Amino acid sequence: MRLITLTTDFGEADWFVGVLKGVVLARAPHATVVDITHQVPPGDLTAAAFVLLNAVPWFPPDAIHVAVVDPGVGSDRAPLAIRWGEGYLVGPDNGLFGPLLELKPGWTARRIVHPDARLTEVSATFHGRDIFAPAAAWLARGGDFDQIGPLVGAPVRLQLPQPHAQADGFQAQVLYVDRFGNAITNLPNQALGSEVRGKWEAELPDGQRCPVAPCYSAVSAGSPVAVCGSSGYVELAVNLGSAAQALGLKPGIPIRFRRCTS
Amino acid sequence: MRLITLTTDFGEADWFVGVLKGVVLARAPHATVVDITHQVPPGDLTAAAFVLLNAVPWFPPDAIHVAVVDPGVGSDRAPLAIRWGEGYLVGPDNGLFGPLLELKPGWTARRIVHPDARLTEVSATFHGRDIFAPAAAWLARGGDFDQIGPLVGAPVRLQLPQPHAQADGFQAQVLYVDRFGNAITNLPNQALGSEVRGKWEAELPDGQRCPVAPCYSAVSAGSPVAVCGSSGYVELAVNLGSAAQALGLKPGIPIRFRRCTS
Amino acid sequence: MRLITLTTDFGEADWFVGVLKGVVLARAPHATVVDITHQVPPGDLTAAAFVLLNAVPWFPPDAIHVAVVDPGVGSDRAPLAIRWGEGYLVGPDNGLFGPLLELKPGWTARRIVHPDARLTEVSATFHGRDIFAPAAAWLARGGDFDQIGPLVGAPVRLQLPQPHAQADGFQAQVLYVDRFGNAITNLPNQALGSEVRGKWEAELPDGQRCPVAPCYSAVSAGSPVAVCGSSGYVELAVNLGSAAQALGLKPGIPIRFRRCTS
Repeated sequence: MRLITLTTDFGEADWFVGVLKGVVLARAPHATVVDITHQVPPGDLTAAAFVLLNAVPWFPPDAIHVAVVDPGVGSDRAPLAIRWGEGYLVGPDNGLFGPLLELKPGWTARRIVHPDARLTEVSATFHGRDIFAPAAAWLARGGDFDQIGPLVGAPVRLQLPQPHAQADGFQAQVLYVDRFGNAITNLPNQALGSEVRGKWEAELPDGQRCPVAPCYSAVSAGSPVAVCGSSGYVELAVNLGSAAQALGLKPGIPIRFRRCTS
Repeated sequence: MRLITLTTDFGEADWFVGVLKGVVLARAPHATVVDITHQVPPGDLTAAAFVLLNAVPWFPPDAIHVAVVDPGVGSDRAPLAIRWGEGYLVGPDNGLFGPLLELKPGWTARRIVHPDARLTEVSATFHGRDIFAPAAAWLARGGDFDQIGPLVGAPVRLQLPQPHAQADGFQAQVLYVDRFGNAITNLPNQALGSEVRGKWEAELPDGQRCPVAPCYSAVSAGSPVAVCGSSGYVELAVNLGSAAQALGLKPGIPIRFRRCTS
Repeated sequence: MRLITLTTDFGEADWFVGVLKGVVLARAPHATVVDITHQVPPGDLTAAAFVLLNAVPWFPPDAIHVAVVDPGVGSDRAPLAIRWGEGYLVGPDNGLFGPLLELKPGWTARRIVHPDARLTEVSATFHGRDIFAPAAAWLARGGDFDQIGPLVGAPVRLQLPQPHAQADGFQAQVLYVDRFGNAITNLPNQALGSEVRGKWEAELPDGQRCPVAPCYSAVSAGSPVAVCGSSGYVELAVNLGSAAQALGLKPGIPIRFRRCTS
């Protein structure tokens, strides 16, 4: 038995995700297939990379992670399989595994060309079905990674935008807005030290400020607050509300974090 | 092999549900994980309790049911594991298992404190990942329930609002609106007897009335009707339409059921 | 182990899909249950039939496919199990398996009446839970198909609308709009021959024309294009956009395909 995860921008309304599972299970009947999400915003590689960074490390180390957010499908971007620790990453060579590759050095990337790791006929628009699912199934069944295809020395590696240290704190930005409307920034929790209460405040582009606190309920209902999030990054929230809606936050919006002077 | 179900308000857009599955399967690789739903309205404990009441009894009796609708995460509400018949209920001590506990007396609740039933580091905002998923995995692998932590004598038990008998029928209310726009009330089907046709009518707050009938199609398309629903409760529907939209129904709206006088 | 797929219009917000899985796994604990989709537009048999046509052939041939899009639930339409090659199709007798039945002749349909292939009590509105899930579980456990119930000689068979050949091409129509806003027509890719570039154009009802090209990116961003789709049918797309939104396309809208005259 081998675990295969799926992360895509396919949505769940059509047959696309079902077909990925059909192709995997027809070829690797004993695999367990688990969805991470299929609601990555269409073509959004930064969101996909951040989702993978947050989800993949919690799975067994020998899992096979398939990610298909692939605006370049049909172009000549390579289809990749990457040996990554005891597991594999499978998807297009467009950078979405970049942040994961930084977590475990010593990976090896290969282009998927072995005929048993692809369908015989490959369409122009659905490489998830025609290449990535069969490649994952082939690896799950014990296919020899070294035979899957030629080495790819320098795959595209998307880098998440980094915060900048400033005299009185950090210039950060929103990376991702979650289902609850929390706006997750690119500032690691650790940057603020282990005890944040009363020490930091966050400033929005319009000058509005809010405290950094240990939990949402440190402020009254409807008030904004920044907290050290479960993803490992500082996030802006509104207690019992949506920070994205209330404060107009979305990916890319700059956020300053400043040491309190009082 | 052990079955673990998941019920949350996490939505499917982010990595949260995937992470729960990763944590479970990393610790209990032979468990089968099944989603009940992840679209409970955020923080809505009544909806969560009603979903669980409708879903859980259909699963094998030894299944482990994890529910994470947890507006109090990070406060001092206890994380609970409840032995319930041959199975377990795992989630926050906020009442969402209340209606299930009435179904099978003789349950025992314990606070989850055993270090093998939690992650080493517990965040302030994601106890699903840090406590409930590991606890379920630990139980699935045969962990001794009596060792999971101290007894909790009187866990919070949410009670669904009850209908009131009246001289000519019942005063009920809408509990839940489903995907089809059917408004499920808190009146058990049995309250109306085994043959409803022509015997009862439902009255909305604005005085509008509709018949209670055996099936949606007992009325013409677009007309309102009350039927004995598959959940065991009487529901208001519009034949080939949405009762919620057409009649403005939502949880809490009072509905009278009256014996027909003719 | 046996694979059971689920295709419904239940949505994922309520407990309905979870209950199907509970009923299956309580009766066939070793089955693997896979979702195709639960977001078929409510009651839309054509969409359901097209989803099944696109998904089912990718699964192992001995899989059991349960489909519940069932606007006639509670009426006297028969509940069917169909032996189809090495596998089974299970659902209401309303035509949704029609296109699949054309793929593999030699099928046999039976009405589900065996008491072990249904729940003891059958509701008026949830035959997915009460009949189709138990029937699939019964077949997964090796139940004898010939014992499931009497033969149904001529089940309802929905036929997808067919394109018409014309002097200079084809009169087709939109069958389905997918998550990306691509409008899939009923014209098979093969109708246009193996090399489409520069040979065909598509014409919308308002007279707007666009080229048929090998891939989306053959036109500039925001421009319409028709491509040979991964489903086997020609689809209208807008490069990096939504054809459904930009061009107002939805199922039933006529599309002409014309040989280029230059």
